[in-house]
Amino acid sequence: MTFELFYWPGLQGRGEFVRLAFEATGTSYVEIVQGKPPGQGMDGLLRTMDDPVCTDPPFAPPFLRVGDELIGQTANILAYLGPLLGLVGESPRARRWVNQLQLTLADLVAEVHDAHHPIASRLYYSNQRMEARKRTAELIDYRLPKFLGYFERVLANNPYAGGWLSEGAMSYADLSLFQVVEGLRYAFPRVMSGFAKAFPRCQATHDAVARVPRIAAYLKSSRRTPFNTTGIFRHYKELDRASPF
Amino acid sequence: MTFELFYWPGLQGRGEFVRLAFEATGTSYVEIVQGKPPGQGMDGLLRTMDDPVCTDPPFAPPFLRVGDELIGQTANILAYLGPLLGLVGESPRARRWVNQLQLTLADLVAEVHDAHHPIASRLYYSNQRMEARKRTAELIDYRLPKFLGYFERVLANNPYAGGWLSEGAMSYADLSLFQVVEGLRYAFPRVMSGFAKAFPRCQATHDAVARVPRIAAYLKSSRRTPFNTTGIFRHYKELDRASPF
Repeated sequence: MTFELFYWPGLQGRGEFVRLAFEATGTSYVEIVQGKPPGQGMDGLLRTMDDPVCTDPPFAPPFLRVGDELIGQTANILAYLGPLLGLVGESPRARRWVNQLQLTLADLVAEVHDAHHPIASRLYYSNQRMEARKRTAELIDYRLPKFLGYFERVLANNPYAGGWLSEGAMSYADLSLFQVVEGLRYAFPRVMSGFAKAFPRCQATHDAVARVPRIAAYLKSSRRTPFNTTGIFRHYKELDRASPF
Repeated sequence: MTFELFYWPGLQGRGEFVRLAFEATGTSYVEIVQGKPPGQGMDGLLRTMDDPVCTDPPFAPPFLRVGDELIGQTANILAYLGPLLGLVGESPRARRWVNQLQLTLADLVAEVHDAHHPIASRLYYSNQRMEARKRTAELIDYRLPKFLGYFERVLANNPYAGGWLSEGAMSYADLSLFQVVEGLRYAFPRVMSGFAKAFPRCQATHDAVARVPRIAAYLKSSRRTPFNTTGIFRHYKELDRASPF
């Protein structure tokens, strides 16, 4: 089975949540665009996504091609890969729970994106800087504490030992929580220095994922695109500030 | 098996996507808040959601209680109910595809909400009216055509007859597409009069769902909360305008 991953070049974006699942499990996958010379790959992505006769077109990247099937939507891709790669518990109930956690992380990711693009994702940040300042303040003061507080509670209440979100083993939701915390630390280093103390369990899960040998190796490799100001998590100095905690 | 649905009172919101699945299939369910006298039910919702020792807390309504399991996130609830209620095909591939469609509809729903609340869902519309005007223009000119054009293509390319999104039978994604089109028609009647002609397949699927006898009966019943300006789809006259088509 060959997993072909289609995602925009030059940024981690939502494709990174899928990459982490492959990398954490040593699963081989083919990047259709990332790492290819400029121009190469992109035509394959667009041709596949915009194929006028495709019966299961994705709305947007990331999407996987597995045989003749296209699988889109990050959480849907991970719900498919989780059982195949051993990144979710066996029971239907555990799978529903991890999917639910992933969807909540996806909501948070969308809010982080919209904090720097509150008016139009089509336009530049510089065209909506005033509004971004307002929405980012809202994100920092209300939304991040609500989301991180929620995951802190989930980690605290998990009856299994190990510090993972579901049961006693790392799931793809833990990988995604790592990515979200890592991205927020890049985007808002001042804010997050306080949050690390306010939400120590989220921080510990982040650190535990970063120590997984395959993940540690991946993060140091050239396959890991550095964070930058074209992705979801963006560092604009004017938007960072003292932590509310 | 008793399905208990927890959702905010007085608005359709995301709870309505779950209600439509129950109503379309004649499945009995218990509303914990909706339809109860003011004050009643709400304490049950908040107590359940905020239970400090709960091991599978939902982040937000809607959520279902089934036995001792809480199931949150609209798309996750529908992925659970779909097979039980016969609202999705049998094959894993069909289930992934319908889940993918539902997640894309969920993205559209979030964008519709943020069009009237681009800065803070915590604050009133009147506090972000200027920004709402800009983001709604973006929604109408770019995002709605992109999303509805996508579903139009999915409907056109479905090799099965019947005018449904997946295979030859109505799935929960069709119910959700109905709800989205219905909500947009309430919010933006002038815009949508043009869109009905530009996206005739979406309109036809909407109409086919509305004609399903159980749905038609539900829409006329007191169980269907009317659209209003506290929900996701809101009619503010100043935000509606001539259709771009």
